[in-house]
Amino acid sequence: MEVKSATEQKSLLATLAPGKRARLRRLLFEFGPGHGTLLLLPIDQGIEHGPRDFFPNPASKDPEYQFRLAAEAGYSALACQIGLAEKYYPDYAGQVPLLLKVNGKTDVPPSDRSFSACNASVEDAVRLGADAVGYTLYVGSPRQDEDLAQLRTVREDCDRYGMPLVIWSYPRGEYIEKKGGQNSFYAIDYAARMAMEMGADIVKLNMPKFSDKDKDSPAPYNEMEISLEDAIGQVVASAGRSLVVLSGGSKVDDETVLEHTRMILEAGGSGVIFGRNVWQREWSEALEIIERIKETLLSSVRRIP
Amino acid sequence: MEVKSATEQKSLLATLAPGKRARLRRLLFEFGPGHGTLLLLPIDQGIEHGPRDFFPNPASKDPEYQFRLAAEAGYSALACQIGLAEKYYPDYAGQVPLLLKVNGKTDVPPSDRSFSACNASVEDAVRLGADAVGYTLYVGSPRQDEDLAQLRTVREDCDRYGMPLVIWSYPRGEYIEKKGGQNSFYAIDYAARMAMEMGADIVKLNMPKFSDKDKDSPAPYNEMEISLEDAIGQVVASAGRSLVVLSGGSKVDDETVLEHTRMILEAGGSGVIFGRNVWQREWSEALEIIERIKETLLSSVRRIP
Amino acid sequence: MEVKSATEQKSLLATLAPGKRARLRRLLFEFGPGHGTLLLLPIDQGIEHGPRDFFPNPASKDPEYQFRLAAEAGYSALACQIGLAEKYYPDYAGQVPLLLKVNGKTDVPPSDRSFSACNASVEDAVRLGADAVGYTLYVGSPRQDEDLAQLRTVREDCDRYGMPLVIWSYPRGEYIEKKGGQNSFYAIDYAARMAMEMGADIVKLNMPKFSDKDKDSPAPYNEMEISLEDAIGQVVASAGRSLVVLSGGSKVDDETVLEHTRMILEAGGSGVIFGRNVWQREWSEALEIIERIKETLLSSVRRIP
Amino acid sequence: MEVKSATEQKSLLATLAPGKRARLRRLLFEFGPGHGTLLLLPIDQGIEHGPRDFFPNPASKDPEYQFRLAAEAGYSALACQIGLAEKYYPDYAGQVPLLLKVNGKTDVPPSDRSFSACNASVEDAVRLGADAVGYTLYVGSPRQDEDLAQLRTVREDCDRYGMPLVIWSYPRGEYIEKKGGQNSFYAIDYAARMAMEMGADIVKLNMPKFSDKDKDSPAPYNEMEISLEDAIGQVVASAGRSLVVLSGGSKVDDETVLEHTRMILEAGGSGVIFGRNVWQREWSEALEIIERIKETLLSSVRRIP
Amino acid sequence: MEVKSATEQKSLLATLAPGKRARLRRLLFEFGPGHGTLLLLPIDQGIEHGPRDFFPNPASKDPEYQFRLAAEAGYSALACQIGLAEKYYPDYAGQVPLLLKVNGKTDVPPSDRSFSACNASVEDAVRLGADAVGYTLYVGSPRQDEDLAQLRTVREDCDRYGMPLVIWSYPRGEYIEKKGGQNSFYAIDYAARMAMEMGADIVKLNMPKFSDKDKDSPAPYNEMEISLEDAIGQVVASAGRSLVVLSGGSKVDDETVLEHTRMILEAGGSGVIFGRNVWQREWSEALEIIERIKETLLSSVRRIP
Repeated sequence: MEVKSATEQKSLLATLAPGKRARLRRLLFEFGPGHGTLLLLPIDQGIEHGPRDFFPNPASKDPEYQFRLAAEAGYSALACQIGLAEKYYPDYAGQVPLLLKVNGKTDVPPSDRSFSACNASVEDAVRLGADAVGYTLYVGSPRQDEDLAQLRTVREDCDRYGMPLVIWSYPRGEYIEKKGGQNSFYAIDYAARMAMEMGADIVKLNMPKFSDKDKDSPAPYNEMEISLEDAIGQVVASAGRSLVVLSGGSKVDDETVLEHTRMILEAGGSGVIFGRNVWQREWSEALEIIERIKETLLSSVRRIP
Repeated sequence: MEVKSATEQKSLLATLAPGKRARLRRLLFEFGPGHGTLLLLPIDQGIEHGPRDFFPNPASKDPEYQFRLAAEAGYSALACQIGLAEKYYPDYAGQVPLLLKVNGKTDVPPSDRSFSACNASVEDAVRLGADAVGYTLYVGSPRQDEDLAQLRTVREDCDRYGMPLVIWSYPRGEYIEKKGGQNSFYAIDYAARMAMEMGADIVKLNMPKFSDKDKDSPAPYNEMEISLEDAIGQVVASAGRSLVVLSGGSKVDDETVLEHTRMILEAGGSGVIFGRNVWQREWSEALEIIERIKETLLSSVRRIP
Repeated sequence: MEVKSATEQKSLLATLAPGKRARLRRLLFEFGPGHGTLLLLPIDQGIEHGPRDFFPNPASKDPEYQFRLAAEAGYSALACQIGLAEKYYPDYAGQVPLLLKVNGKTDVPPSDRSFSACNASVEDAVRLGADAVGYTLYVGSPRQDEDLAQLRTVREDCDRYGMPLVIWSYPRGEYIEKKGGQNSFYAIDYAARMAMEMGADIVKLNMPKFSDKDKDSPAPYNEMEISLEDAIGQVVASAGRSLVVLSGGSKVDDETVLEHTRMILEAGGSGVIFGRNVWQREWSEALEIIERIKETLLSSVRRIP
Repeated sequence: MEVKSATEQKSLLATLAPGKRARLRRLLFEFGPGHGTLLLLPIDQGIEHGPRDFFPNPASKDPEYQFRLAAEAGYSALACQIGLAEKYYPDYAGQVPLLLKVNGKTDVPPSDRSFSACNASVEDAVRLGADAVGYTLYVGSPRQDEDLAQLRTVREDCDRYGMPLVIWSYPRGEYIEKKGGQNSFYAIDYAARMAMEMGADIVKLNMPKFSDKDKDSPAPYNEMEISLEDAIGQVVASAGRSLVVLSGGSKVDDETVLEHTRMILEAGGSGVIFGRNVWQREWSEALEIIERIKETLLSSVRRIP
Repeated sequence: MEVKSATEQKSLLATLAPGKRARLRRLLFEFGPGHGTLLLLPIDQGIEHGPRDFFPNPASKDPEYQFRLAAEAGYSALACQIGLAEKYYPDYAGQVPLLLKVNGKTDVPPSDRSFSACNASVEDAVRLGADAVGYTLYVGSPRQDEDLAQLRTVREDCDRYGMPLVIWSYPRGEYIEKKGGQNSFYAIDYAARMAMEMGADIVKLNMPKFSDKDKDSPAPYNEMEISLEDAIGQVVASAGRSLVVLSGGSKVDDETVLEHTRMILEAGGSGVIFGRNVWQREWSEALEIIERIKETLLSSVRRIP
């Protein structure tokens, strides 16, 4: 039997029910760079880290900054929590799709037993005209049972309302730390598969990182020699028909931003979700890097969902 | 892009659905000092601290004291728990708006794992003719997941019934103590943003305090040189379009009361919520300080919501 | 402003909705000693302590003993759990009002983390023709969040069905022990206020006791010089418009029983709830002490609810 | 006042609603030995202990053995879990009443914090044509709050559907071990009362056992001199109008089986529930001992419910 | 009384309601090897172990591999989680029956307190056209109370919708390790009975293994001399009328695969569920071993359900 590579996966849209298909098409083709790519703007750092992320660019403390940026620079969607969605999105409704993040937490307590409770519902997303819902799953956390049970309710509501489900799939917790760490190839690969099996339409992943702790990962990861490109390819393949977007994390230099964009697209991924790398810049600089990311996305795209 | 300062934020009322707008207008313009300001009387110390707060002014032990004070001195609203609302508010219905506090707890157990369970509902508030609902959120508590899940149900009901949501946003718990403490600028700033992102229409905050423990806060707070005025400005800005009221805490001298009132208003805040500072005084003295607070509010107001 | 003393509180009945008013009037005026007083017979020791309380008067082991006593001696109401209510109350329906206790527990485990789960509902009380519902709240327990959340559902159902709510308000748990103990004036005073704020129509309290541990209570309780009469007065005042009944506890001598009865009534309380002090006596002796309690109640009453 | 002894208790059936009365009459009069007695066959050892109990009589491993025994030897009812009820009872429906046990657990974990979750509902019992429902309550367990809350839902459904409620009332957990142990007279007496107060129509109890640990029981149990007959009498009296059946436990000699049967009946109990003592015997021997138990039941019966 | 051996058990289908019967007949007779046998393909290793199981045969990482294999090689059913069912099953609907697994978890945390939360519902299974539902029960886990309560809801929905219930019955947790371990004959025998009593139509078991730890099992297992064949016979008998399928576990040599298949069928079991033993092979090799398993199944079958 011939098996398809990640870039040859069957069209995701073809497998989706009408509501999900209609909404997801908006993100993939009607807004943002289009051509089946995704450029997402996350603005959830205010709750996940607190306002400290806004100091490098004080203008970014006002959510208007990110909302206007998403609309004017042409993003596929903007991801935020319920408070921002209710108080800032109305002015931009119809100008940029909304991805409502339904869970979140502060980073004050440690992450050894991570769990992120829902603060909003898929119904909220429907009411606000959102085109997708976001959920953070802490893969391998000691509290995974609560997490999976909670995700189930979100996934069921997404099926009910035809709302695309985006899973922020993050390995986390005391036990993953003992098996190579939350950014290991093993951990990210597991997270990709887990999100797909739990019903994600889109999976948000962090870039895998190699380290000395990899030897604590289960076989065969503990003795594997693999390039970053190949690891990304594996990770995207593990997500199967679910689309993959790569997360940016804290601010890095421009070339790394573009290089990562190219790598995820060439591996069959569908896009990127860069927050601080974009809005921790002054307005015109932000527009400029967005333009370059878009060009890279479009020139690197390999898979049409 | 030009970003608005805290005092130039877009009108909150303009973003609210009719029920919230109608009710919030009562607090901001029809009762109390008006002109978009808020003067709130909290009477929840009986459960949060026990009757010990009433000894300095024995008359205050009878809830009639605070209810009559709120009505006669002209408050924007009176905040209390369900028992007082059911047994004392009827006589004052229509004379002063009711802000029903829906959660609360005693201070007998320590606060390392703070969580305050709901003892009343938004439906109770609707039934009692309240114009707002209050919720205490312990930002960063080890039990934040339960807190955020519970807040979600209150927020959803507020959206459903058009009830303004006031969040008492208090950093609390063992981990915030390790990062500078519950009154640090870092903690209060985080609390302001968190409440806004969770859907608060009004955020109640404590005054940030500088201390040696600030060096344990995350960057850039750990090395920041900032005046109290600027810190308050930052905190109010972090709350975005949500209105901010400053909490008084235990009784301080008159000049500090008025100075704090002026500072929060000039920073773009909308008002104050002073309890013990007011009702731990004999009747005529209470009326006198209220009058001076009102004057300060009206002379310092910078932002019309 | 003139504030009313505990004995001058506004009529509770006047603030109650029709269902609560109709039912509570039965207890206060139609059954028992009347004239606004309460004489309650508790028969929940069988689950709270086990059958050991019945040995001093073996006849009391048969619930018929207490039911017949309540009916024949003329009690305001009899308080028991669902099992007794279903199997013994039918024969006495209409002869003595039923106060259905909806939570309870054994005393086998220690009380450092006390919580008493509901074993019956307000709907059960309605179905059985009860005129009031009883709930035990462990004020200050480490599990207060569960307790308050559970009480909320009972209180809401009481509001829905017009059922008077009686709160057994007991300070309890490891932390109250560190602050003066569960019977300290501080603890009882807190419990009185807490029950009132949580929606009690009637508050059941234990008699405050002075001890060396009082110095561990928060200020000003730790340094207070106060008579027992004044302490009772304070406690009753802390309950505000909620009516107060004093609990008897284990069996004491007759003069103490009557003295306590007099003290609570003169302080503005509404009655007593004596169990073992009554039914641990042989039938004719029980009738005799009840008669003397009734006389004391009627001769000491100061407040008409 | 004259109080009735356990054997003179008022008719239970007379206090029951029609559904409970109709179903309970089947067990007491229409099936089994009749004349108001109960002979119950428990077949829940397969989950409570695992298949190890079936080795002494391999034929007993097939549930058909117990079902056929119950039907052919003429039992009042057969008690089992949902799986057996669904897969084996259909062939015997109408031939022997079904008592559906709605909770259960393995004995793999220790019993210091015993709690037995429901695996079936009263609705299941109604659907399967059962005539009673069984529930195991661990009296005094550290998890008693969960147990009582769960029992409440079962009891409420029993009231709703007119289904007799049988409580397996077992003292259990780390704290009862410190107060004389789970089989002490104190513990069994408490369990009898507890079950009755929680709404049991029938209480299943273990035989009390005297031991050196009795001195750790609360007064007056710690210093009591009492015969086994009197202790059983006390226990039955503590259950009041609820009927009592004695549990057999592991296999003992025939004379003990019959002696215990006689003792419980003469004390006012209603019957026995013997499992291993019966079906750990070869078929004809089982029929023989059942016949002798029946004779003993009928010759010892003192109370007609 | 004559008791039936495991291979002579009464027809399971005859005891089932129409929905269960219709669906189960598809698995037993219409698809796969037929003649009342079961050949199940599990593809849940991606979440239970992560993608590491796919490296021996990289083609197996694409779920298409297993889905196509199940359809083309003629399986009785394919077992997978909701994500695969939604995104891959549509292309194979009607070609191979779907067994929707409704719970699952990662193996990142240790298994001392195993519990697997539901991530899908029986309603999902109905919606997707599944013919059976799978549930993993961790027999004897410290969290067995949560597990049994959750299983109850699944079992009830299976009864409601006529959906056959397959229980993956796995002894697990810190206490089973102290009593001989999770693969001991004692543990597997207990698991077989438990699943049947909890309502399984089909029980999935691991092969029992003898070891030195058996002496820690309860009597009589601790001193038992028994052949593997007899142990399997006992285990199948413990499942009573529920059908038994044997699990394969990690990849072993071909002769062991076929030997185990023969042993379970001859003991009265109904089939096998082999995953890695099949799809960790190249396509043509996989087809080949499947063919040999089928032949063995059909030549060894002893019981027609």
